[in-house]
Amino acid sequence: MADKPNVVNNLEVDRLMSIVGAVQQNPDLGKTLWRANTRWLGGFQSEANIRGFTIKMDEPPDLAGSNTAPNMVEMVLGAYGCCLQTGYAMNAAVMGIPVDKIEIEVEGDIDLPGFFGLEPPDNVWPGFTTVRAKVFLKAPTASKEQLEELHRRVTSTSPVGSILARPVKVETQLVSRRSV
Amino acid sequence: MADKPNVVNNLEVDRLMSIVGAVQQNPDLGKTLWRANTRWLGGFQSEANIRGFTIKMDEPPDLAGSNTAPNMVEMVLGAYGCCLQTGYAMNAAVMGIPVDKIEIEVEGDIDLPGFFGLEPPDNVWPGFTTVRAKVFLKAPTASKEQLEELHRRVTSTSPVGSILARPVKVETQLVSRRSV
Repeated sequence: MADKPNVVNNLEVDRLMSIVGAVQQNPDLGKTLWRANTRWLGGFQSEANIRGFTIKMDEPPDLAGSNTAPNMVEMVLGAYGCCLQTGYAMNAAVMGIPVDKIEIEVEGDIDLPGFFGLEPPDNVWPGFTTVRAKVFLKAPTASKEQLEELHRRVTSTSPVGSILARPVKVETQLVSRRSV
Repeated sequence: MADKPNVVNNLEVDRLMSIVGAVQQNPDLGKTLWRANTRWLGGFQSEANIRGFTIKMDEPPDLAGSNTAPNMVEMVLGAYGCCLQTGYAMNAAVMGIPVDKIEIEVEGDIDLPGFFGLEPPDNVWPGFTTVRAKVFLKAPTASKEQLEELHRRVTSTSPVGSILARPVKVETQLVSRRSV
């Protein structure tokens, strides 16, 4: 048994626990910095470069975009769904619950007058006011109580959930006319 | 002149103004709903399906992921940079300012003990505490005052900036054991 990793949900539970344990021993290890560099491609087309991965974004035709990729607020909804899925897979693995399937429908409301600057931002927020997620999770061996505990753990520790629900400090600095 | 669209930054300004004007006339048109459906692929791999576009997400090796795509918090940073770029391009077009180049470096701090559930969420947030963006914008014909006004407009109307900075209401519902 010592040679065989304990794999649940395609995750090595011992490996996960050792990462969590290392951060628990030394909280400084858990202070992480994340980065993305983005580049404008003209019109409403942009791309993000993240550790060598390139992600395109654009606007749909209704918003005068060229519709070559999702837009930015859709990407945030997708990130929330995938973040929850990561949390369910991880916490279920640690709890010893095999999960067969997770699918999530995420939606959010935006009032465009905020984005267009037609209303002062204090009246109409340019971003989401509400985000709703419906999680379809199939874990036939789990009890109702286990699933409730799993859901509680996941929603209270979701990084993107926290980013949505809490006021993040945002500092945006314009460095104009750099010869790039 | 009537036949030739007024194009600045690869955007048709008249088309943009007519979309903005339509929402101004009828604010109900501006009440928009955005969606993403996500699907777990095993381990820490997930994908988001957004209007036919498929976006992969994963975790890096340090977090026991298989490193096939950016992770979710990186995607949010990328979305913020691309959102700002869209705002600069649009507002500059409306102000008649041609922009040659926009590049943005975005970074954010996360304390992993929050994500790992080692600390109560009230003590250590699982998501970003701060997000910093540095905007490199090249618009040789714009005055310092125009660039300051452009920056003010963009940062005050950025949808993803608003999502980060303001507390969005998040409703996440578990619908377990659906036969999917």
